[in-house]
Amino acid sequence: MFSNIRVVMVNTSLPANIGAAARALKTMGLGNLVLVDPQVFPSADATALASGASDILHYARVVPTLQDAIADCKLVIGASARSRTIPWSMLDSRQAGELVRTESERHPVALVFGREDRGLTNEELQQCHYHVYIPSDSEYGVLNVAAAIQVICYEVRMAHLIAENRPTTDIVQPASMPLPNAPWDEELVNAGDMEGFYQHFEAAMVESGFLDPDNPRQMPVRVRRMFNRMRLDRLEYNLWRGIFRQMQAMAAEIARASKK
Amino acid sequence: MFSNIRVVMVNTSLPANIGAAARALKTMGLGNLVLVDPQVFPSADATALASGASDILHYARVVPTLQDAIADCKLVIGASARSRTIPWSMLDSRQAGELVRTESERHPVALVFGREDRGLTNEELQQCHYHVYIPSDSEYGVLNVAAAIQVICYEVRMAHLIAENRPTTDIVQPASMPLPNAPWDEELVNAGDMEGFYQHFEAAMVESGFLDPDNPRQMPVRVRRMFNRMRLDRLEYNLWRGIFRQMQAMAAEIARASKK
Repeated sequence: MFSNIRVVMVNTSLPANIGAAARALKTMGLGNLVLVDPQVFPSADATALASGASDILHYARVVPTLQDAIADCKLVIGASARSRTIPWSMLDSRQAGELVRTESERHPVALVFGREDRGLTNEELQQCHYHVYIPSDSEYGVLNVAAAIQVICYEVRMAHLIAENRPTTDIVQPASMPLPNAPWDEELVNAGDMEGFYQHFEAAMVESGFLDPDNPRQMPVRVRRMFNRMRLDRLEYNLWRGIFRQMQAMAAEIARASKK
Repeated sequence: MFSNIRVVMVNTSLPANIGAAARALKTMGLGNLVLVDPQVFPSADATALASGASDILHYARVVPTLQDAIADCKLVIGASARSRTIPWSMLDSRQAGELVRTESERHPVALVFGREDRGLTNEELQQCHYHVYIPSDSEYGVLNVAAAIQVICYEVRMAHLIAENRPTTDIVQPASMPLPNAPWDEELVNAGDMEGFYQHFEAAMVESGFLDPDNPRQMPVRVRRMFNRMRLDRLEYNLWRGIFRQMQAMAAEIARASKK
């Protein structure tokens, strides 16, 4: 479905970044990688970082200039972190994902990424219809090139899934509790307290004969899932702790009685 | 603004991934990294990959168990690639970004990432309120752990920028042409043809005395920007090429006349 989309890496220094980029493409369902004048390729480092995506490297095309990589493309988008002397038409990463999705249904589209240390040259940027930037921190905004490729390819895939109105995963989703965004009158309990809570729950269940500690089966997990969905507040937590203590007290009472 | 958000890496094998994660956090404006029982830390590899983000490593907290990392958190979200025996409440990466943004205004929130080879254990996943997945390719869905951290932190940042209704960058944006999504009656011209087009344009301008080839100043760049925004179709392209030829013919005619 993404056969019209190619990712172009220009003059990459580190083979590890080429490998990591191949993996990034493949996880997002993309397959076409073009390397413009890579400093080292092929290389063992690239293959190692590609992990299960070495087929992307195998089929990667190596060309001498950017123009060779994009000549047949009707949409060319170049990654740019910096503001330029002459401003160009800009897209943020989300807009770029949507535009690439739309146009790649009709003609070849290129996403172009530059060197590790200084990105694309002005001359290369001027061969692009749009520049794309990832809205990063204004004081430290330089993503690693493979990380930038991961983010942009992710946005292309998300745009596709949203446009097709498809679930974002093949996993069958359980019904989720509504997101607890509404204002709440009590503090939520934190994760540390909940660990003590589960221990208390299990102790109460074991002591009251409800749970066999040698064969608990799925019960502890199902209980965790239930309470994690519920996300107890402090009052509710205290209520339950009281119930557990009550069960323990009853069990102790029964044990004492049976010893008499 | 993201001080209530921490990224937790559990039992990471490769120091390079810790370094790459630190850089991923910092590019997205996050600062809190917690390492649960890392196999090697600190390390030169981590520092090298962190690039300008070594302060994140310097302040990273190292703890022995996941529980130590999350005890004070009221929202814990764990990364999970696989469907589990017992389905848990799931969020995709975009939903997770939005939830983390909302809740981190009120209390500490943890994003938990597992081992390179097998992610989080079931026991660790069961300490989470939600599991988060990145909607990756169904046949090759395993992102590198630092890449996954980059995507999730990116979604947190995007959710924040969108909620604040802030521009996604500090760069002052030029007015962009409307995205060419409407159906069009003519084929768009590709990038290869446009290179010839610019050469033709410049030749015509030089020959007709409009452009000094030894001092073109910003004109060639401004012309590229203009036509890249316009995105010529084939008819328009042919029209311009005709105009350029006409200018060249006139210039030649004038040159011939002056020689006589």
